[in-house]
Amino acid sequence: MRRWPNCDLSSSQQAIQLTAQLLIDAGDTVWLEDPGYLGARNAMASAGAAICPIPVDAEGMQIDEYTATKYPTPKLIYTTPSHQYPLGMAMSLTRRMALLEQAAAMKAWIIEDDYDGEFQYEQRPLPSLQGLDTQGRVIYMGTFSKVLFGSLRLAYLVLPPELVTPFTLARTAFDGHSNQLMQAVTADFINGGHFASHLRQMRTLYKSRRDLLIAQLAEHCPQLTPVNTSGGLQFAVWCPAGCEAEWTAAGIAQGLPMRPLSKFYLGEPQGEGFLMGYSSLGNDTIRLQAYTLAKIIHG
Amino acid sequence: MRRWPNCDLSSSQQAIQLTAQLLIDAGDTVWLEDPGYLGARNAMASAGAAICPIPVDAEGMQIDEYTATKYPTPKLIYTTPSHQYPLGMAMSLTRRMALLEQAAAMKAWIIEDDYDGEFQYEQRPLPSLQGLDTQGRVIYMGTFSKVLFGSLRLAYLVLPPELVTPFTLARTAFDGHSNQLMQAVTADFINGGHFASHLRQMRTLYKSRRDLLIAQLAEHCPQLTPVNTSGGLQFAVWCPAGCEAEWTAAGIAQGLPMRPLSKFYLGEPQGEGFLMGYSSLGNDTIRLQAYTLAKIIHG
Repeated sequence: MRRWPNCDLSSSQQAIQLTAQLLIDAGDTVWLEDPGYLGARNAMASAGAAICPIPVDAEGMQIDEYTATKYPTPKLIYTTPSHQYPLGMAMSLTRRMALLEQAAAMKAWIIEDDYDGEFQYEQRPLPSLQGLDTQGRVIYMGTFSKVLFGSLRLAYLVLPPELVTPFTLARTAFDGHSNQLMQAVTADFINGGHFASHLRQMRTLYKSRRDLLIAQLAEHCPQLTPVNTSGGLQFAVWCPAGCEAEWTAAGIAQGLPMRPLSKFYLGEPQGEGFLMGYSSLGNDTIRLQAYTLAKIIHG
Repeated sequence: MRRWPNCDLSSSQQAIQLTAQLLIDAGDTVWLEDPGYLGARNAMASAGAAICPIPVDAEGMQIDEYTATKYPTPKLIYTTPSHQYPLGMAMSLTRRMALLEQAAAMKAWIIEDDYDGEFQYEQRPLPSLQGLDTQGRVIYMGTFSKVLFGSLRLAYLVLPPELVTPFTLARTAFDGHSNQLMQAVTADFINGGHFASHLRQMRTLYKSRRDLLIAQLAEHCPQLTPVNTSGGLQFAVWCPAGCEAEWTAAGIAQGLPMRPLSKFYLGEPQGEGFLMGYSSLGNDTIRLQAYTLAKIIHG
């Protein structure tokens, strides 16, 4: 069954804040991916949640039939199944089914933050948790910030029926509504077929930039190992132990869009590395980025 | 000294919510005008504030040198000094000075919600609390919702220096920023002189609508007494005791933009009456409104 957005918002951040404020009482446990999105961690911590980090592996958040016995029962589970933030893997179908089953058994809500799920370069995306859910546990968050532009300030939720009224009332009380001119223009853009066309063009463009960055790193920075590069607007690279802090500090000082992976972890990091963005960079900038990084690496 | 907005927002509602969440801990006392704005009351109550209603009279919120001895010491005082909501009087200069002095002595913050202060038809507006304040206690809230249009989603704060960093950080964490295209267009509109021209035109237009509504009510509904009609986008009218509920219910059922005054009170209402909007109504609609109301009143 196709479902439609039923709560208007101006950003994913606002969606996460609203969810934290409506669903979390002080002391409630929230499961977060580790490493994971700092904005979600901060929002949940502000609402007084007890944060429980769940490790991720090649299949995403490590949820199986025993997970509920190992961690405190959550009120809410936050996940980025299309493209894990920051490591980039997609959650496997097995894990998705396990997560839905566990959440239903524990009466936990799931936030499915699909922040850049539109950008898959290698294969068709898996069904969303929201699409697979038969128990009404999934709060699906989508945004136009990544697929159009952030300044548009348009995002949306697909909510289980029982949450629609409290969320739309709270959204109205907090900040009224989105810019309706922008909503109308975006609706025209979608209905005229331009959005689908824009997505196709951007997938081709971003894929070519990703390909170039991978090739440039392979040529100039063989010390780096890109991971989970099949989608999204950036990818993570692992680097040799002991190098993350120095290389990222030097790169950031020279204007490279790098973010050290260690800061996304609550538990012990699985390795050292950093995030590299490419979607907004022209080919010359990507080449310069690899060249600058190579100079840093080779001292 | 001219001061400038130092925190971007999308609405006054968001400004009030942000202020409540940043400055109010559960149990803190907040002074609100009575009658007053329900959005402020709800935001403060949601943040766990103990609401303390302060009566208003012809000079606005009743603040004098003894007020602090009569009520619990507040963390925050919310006021609408340009055009009290819903009764419409401007706060006198004496009261403004008393409020600033009391707030400084009590180390209380003042929210000055200037939601429609641009519309004064009879005299020059008094200086804002923010402009008179020498102690850095005033949080000034402005919005383009009333002077341009609500769907624009642009509002702003002028904050005391010590609040700028926490407010801008929280605003960013909650919802990023406003729509930058709309900011740019509005800045061009202002810098090109169109905003000042638009304000002049709207003042003339709204004044003529106000004049017509006053004349129509005097002719057809002499039972009603308009009050504080010198500014704003609506005014309050008093009606005979025992009539508010019946007349407003009948009027609303027939599509009239009336709101009963009793719902804005926490304490005992000073009288019965309702708010009447006129700024968005054409002359024919204003005449029809008075005619419809007269039919309701005369049964």
